[in-house]
Amino acid sequence: MNASNTPRRPAVTVREVGLRDGLQSVAMIVPTSHKLEWIGAAYAAGQREIEVGSFVPARLLPQLADTAELVAHAKTLPGLVASVLVPNLKGAERAIEVGADLMLVPLSASAAHSAANVRKTPDEMIKQIADIRAARDAASSKTIIEVGMSTAFGCTIQGDVAEDDVIRLLQAALDAGAERVGLADTVGYADPAQVRRLFEKAFRALGSQADKLTCGHFHDTRGLALANTLAALDVGVCRFDASLAGIGGCPHAPGASGNAATEDVVFMLERMGYHTGIDLTALLELRKRVASWLAGEQLGGAVWRAGVPKSRPATTFTSSSFSSQPGIQ
Amino acid sequence: MNASNTPRRPAVTVREVGLRDGLQSVAMIVPTSHKLEWIGAAYAAGQREIEVGSFVPARLLPQLADTAELVAHAKTLPGLVASVLVPNLKGAERAIEVGADLMLVPLSASAAHSAANVRKTPDEMIKQIADIRAARDAASSKTIIEVGMSTAFGCTIQGDVAEDDVIRLLQAALDAGAERVGLADTVGYADPAQVRRLFEKAFRALGSQADKLTCGHFHDTRGLALANTLAALDVGVCRFDASLAGIGGCPHAPGASGNAATEDVVFMLERMGYHTGIDLTALLELRKRVASWLAGEQLGGAVWRAGVPKSRPATTFTSSSFSSQPGIQ
Repeated sequence: MNASNTPRRPAVTVREVGLRDGLQSVAMIVPTSHKLEWIGAAYAAGQREIEVGSFVPARLLPQLADTAELVAHAKTLPGLVASVLVPNLKGAERAIEVGADLMLVPLSASAAHSAANVRKTPDEMIKQIADIRAARDAASSKTIIEVGMSTAFGCTIQGDVAEDDVIRLLQAALDAGAERVGLADTVGYADPAQVRRLFEKAFRALGSQADKLTCGHFHDTRGLALANTLAALDVGVCRFDASLAGIGGCPHAPGASGNAATEDVVFMLERMGYHTGIDLTALLELRKRVASWLAGEQLGGAVWRAGVPKSRPATTFTSSSFSSQPGIQ
Repeated sequence: MNASNTPRRPAVTVREVGLRDGLQSVAMIVPTSHKLEWIGAAYAAGQREIEVGSFVPARLLPQLADTAELVAHAKTLPGLVASVLVPNLKGAERAIEVGADLMLVPLSASAAHSAANVRKTPDEMIKQIADIRAARDAASSKTIIEVGMSTAFGCTIQGDVAEDDVIRLLQAALDAGAERVGLADTVGYADPAQVRRLFEKAFRALGSQADKLTCGHFHDTRGLALANTLAALDVGVCRFDASLAGIGGCPHAPGASGNAATEDVVFMLERMGYHTGIDLTALLELRKRVASWLAGEQLGGAVWRAGVPKSRPATTFTSSSFSSQPGIQ
């Protein structure tokens, strides 16, 4: 609010989803103490949005059974937005109960993926979102409702996903009471041209609600996570999901890369002149710790291996090093 | 030349540099028979520019000692542009003698890198380029002279490289008789904002000679090869170097990724709607063969593992699947 404190570089938010989207595909159970350490160190490194877990039945995802405890811890960290994934009303009720700052409801643009993932049609999920909104309002809760549109760029079961289906469902989710929406390339099918086209189409279609489409979620399954992030950035997206060390494989492609690696996304953004608020050196230290807990698991990312370039270090840019509109042509 | 044969998608050239930039950092000597097989299969897959080797003393780079034989073979393949790297006049004389279609002269924008790499200052290399042009013209040879500006985006020894140095040297190289120039991120320091800025600045500075700046050469050392390729594409670059399986590590970062992986670059471009002329399926088959020859070496790339997405396969796009200006906003 104080003009002298206003960052002089354009701000971009990187939400850490490693604890949820990442760990949910990791077989070894990471102890709660490690997760608490992860959240604390990510916060200390400057991360201000962390998806700490998911309210799904513990028998389905034992890895995420400690979500309530993680939310409680995250709530002690000032300014941290702790989000949880909730696949249904029951999960949303838990999120409201524990006071999560944000709940992310997955909505598949692909009917085939929706059936496989949540055993509901996309339109049944829209109804669920309305129920979640009603429950949230009835509880006078402040938990933000965000809808993540999965398979927005294609689906391993269905193949192509019609852009009009994505747009229609985005609008329906907002009409049902979602306060934010995002587009997710769940299976790593997106290409940069498609990313620009679909986000721009969606921004236009949503009109006065375009500012509610805030998030891009990209997987590196076919190596395009950073190129797709760049493409989304170019058309005005300024909030991205990423997973430390790129944790989170693709169930349909054993051995394939997972989410965009947080450290690489932060490196790219900071080096381009954007302000993420995240200290890359601290993040790389945390990556080492997390990697040591996940020995034997496939990890991703590139910057950790090569290190930060000599001179012009990623986290100490001065605004004078960059043009006023870095990277946006 | 026949209008009905004109590709309806914008064309992008991907030059294969795996046999040179890739193999030069591979310890195990790949037999000439395998290299001939590689060139033949790359050609069959549709690649029309291949850097087959380098005319440097065989005692320095025994891996590339068979370059003359590879050029001779490449010249039997109609329409293939066979290029070789030449670090000096002596190498250029060999390239002219064997009739290489193109010789690539490296010119470091960083004085420190230039000293370490070719034991000459950048300005001494400019003189060398003039000598190479004179030798080429004296021989009435058709070998094209291309200058690759290495460390254009930063240097592991010197750190930052001034953009004005890059621009000055590009102009000097053209004045000395180079017919094409390109910008190379030799050490993986470039970010997409910098790529756009430097290419645009160079295009402006070169004025009527801007069309001679044709090539982008990116390394994936810090995961940004594809994002940087996209950035260059956005500002009008339509020729890229890439190395099959991303072969070609970084001597300054053991274990780090090498060149942009040809198969991933082709996947991205084709999926965005560009025409590379390259059959991705055939390229992935070739990758398997090359990988089998290089057992134990670190390879890169992502598409080979996850496979091509279901539906909308990368190499059978029809122009109607795309807007007329795919990916260019």
